[in-house]
Amino acid sequence: MAPGISNEKKKEDEPSSKGNAIHLCNPHLEKMKEDILYHFALGTGTHDFPALFGDVKFVCVGGSPSRMKAFIAYIAEELGLGSQDGDYPNICAGTDRYAMYKVGPVLSVSHGMGIPSISIMLHELIKLLYHAKCSNITLIRIGTSGGIGLEPGSVVITRQSVDATFKPQFEQVVLGKTIIRSTNLDEELAKELMQCSKEINEFNTVIGNTMCTLDFYEGQGRLDGAICLYNEEEKLQYLKAAYDSGVRNIEMESSVFAAMCNLSGVRAAVVCVTLLNRLEGDQISSSHDILVEYQQRPQKLVGYFIKKSLGKV
Amino acid sequence: MAPGISNEKKKEDEPSSKGNAIHLCNPHLEKMKEDILYHFALGTGTHDFPALFGDVKFVCVGGSPSRMKAFIAYIAEELGLGSQDGDYPNICAGTDRYAMYKVGPVLSVSHGMGIPSISIMLHELIKLLYHAKCSNITLIRIGTSGGIGLEPGSVVITRQSVDATFKPQFEQVVLGKTIIRSTNLDEELAKELMQCSKEINEFNTVIGNTMCTLDFYEGQGRLDGAICLYNEEEKLQYLKAAYDSGVRNIEMESSVFAAMCNLSGVRAAVVCVTLLNRLEGDQISSSHDILVEYQQRPQKLVGYFIKKSLGKV
Repeated sequence: MAPGISNEKKKEDEPSSKGNAIHLCNPHLEKMKEDILYHFALGTGTHDFPALFGDVKFVCVGGSPSRMKAFIAYIAEELGLGSQDGDYPNICAGTDRYAMYKVGPVLSVSHGMGIPSISIMLHELIKLLYHAKCSNITLIRIGTSGGIGLEPGSVVITRQSVDATFKPQFEQVVLGKTIIRSTNLDEELAKELMQCSKEINEFNTVIGNTMCTLDFYEGQGRLDGAICLYNEEEKLQYLKAAYDSGVRNIEMESSVFAAMCNLSGVRAAVVCVTLLNRLEGDQISSSHDILVEYQQRPQKLVGYFIKKSLGKV
Repeated sequence: MAPGISNEKKKEDEPSSKGNAIHLCNPHLEKMKEDILYHFALGTGTHDFPALFGDVKFVCVGGSPSRMKAFIAYIAEELGLGSQDGDYPNICAGTDRYAMYKVGPVLSVSHGMGIPSISIMLHELIKLLYHAKCSNITLIRIGTSGGIGLEPGSVVITRQSVDATFKPQFEQVVLGKTIIRSTNLDEELAKELMQCSKEINEFNTVIGNTMCTLDFYEGQGRLDGAICLYNEEEKLQYLKAAYDSGVRNIEMESSVFAAMCNLSGVRAAVVCVTLLNRLEGDQISSSHDILVEYQQRPQKLVGYFIKKSLGKV
């Protein structure tokens, strides 16, 4: 086969596998009469998923419930579907594990902190989108992170999520055995988001690798946790090695997020603001107002992207 | 040396190392002028920790913020320090990452779901107790879990927290290198709690090993996640092997909890109710009222233990 044909075929396959229905990697679910999404307090026996969620095209997720509520109010106003001061009920009001809000084609869901917490949420979210028969979903994590070698307030669009040894992989333990999953994210989507940032032109944005750790203190080389058995030189050596490998920020959810979106055929991106430059310190000591403004940057960027995708820019 | 003397010495040493001041495993903290506990929205420069927390003797932690609020109201009434309908302000009102409540010598703190989430909370909690000059702290996690071979609603007091291969250890990644930490819990405290359960005599309680996983679905052998690449037989084989090794329940926080309490010299226990028997299924399908009653059992047991410790039984 000529190389040209092979390339064409690859390009044809990619959007169709990523762009259409949710791919559920679980043959057992078809046999279940009812599916209870326990941590959302929703279930197929009690809620009409296609009616509630069938029109969803964009899902934005982030750690903090109040930030995800603020995002839905912001996007409602941006899309002309409601006001910033409107009342947006929490769809998961029956639990305090996660919070979920919806306006038009946009769903906003909180995921707490760390890989296990976002992983529970993603299992139930992917099943929700599948049961609702959603298609052409774009899923974006908007979050906060520690930067490396960047001015605080910079936004990082993740090229690859890497582990604590800078490898683009996620170790998942299944029935006691460790398996390795890829953490690639959608390259085209990252470029589209970068273009959006250029168009709004309000803050520094880069595409870079994101290191995903299991711990905020020792796992990220901080000197200010309750436990620290290394010195400042060792810490800086580690952070500089991360920088040299292409890491521009550190957070705690991107690897499992990328791995699960990959397996489920969902087009996904990670957009995080950096609250500090870890080469200069460990404590997040900026004023409340500055941190609030920083946290709005991924919301602005992703809000603009959604507007543009819907032809409203 | 005669065995008797050696034994005596050991017994003398144990309570003193476990029972007195918080042991901070971080030489860097002494050099910091101010310590900002970012995820609590508290700081030594803005809050008087000894005045606010100096009298704390019991700290109870659990995943859900609303459950930890319910616990403080319950314990206030039990100790005669307030009513169950009283108003207990959230000490961490400046953030939605964690919630914290206090009455008398009892502090109640939420920790979210999973090892990374509880680990951030524990780093900041241990520093808080240290800055407040607290001593003789007992720290108990009260939570929910999946049971193995137990009637739903049974309470498990953890003997040892084990990983997904049933080993009593916690792997912590520090500056990209994996180190192993012990997950032993206080044996005497577990026995005291068991004795309390016998005295209240309201529900089945056992001492057993607790498996701590990084994932709720694949990590615990569930067949109902968005991703599942094994069959029912492999799942049951795994859960039965866990049972045979002494595991009686599965949750997602105990290993790092035990490891960090060990290193900090804090007397600690894990008390979780089982919401279902995993040998019989995966979905948590009991009614809301039954689940609410189950979740009150660890609270009742630990509430009784605190009352008894304070001579109020």
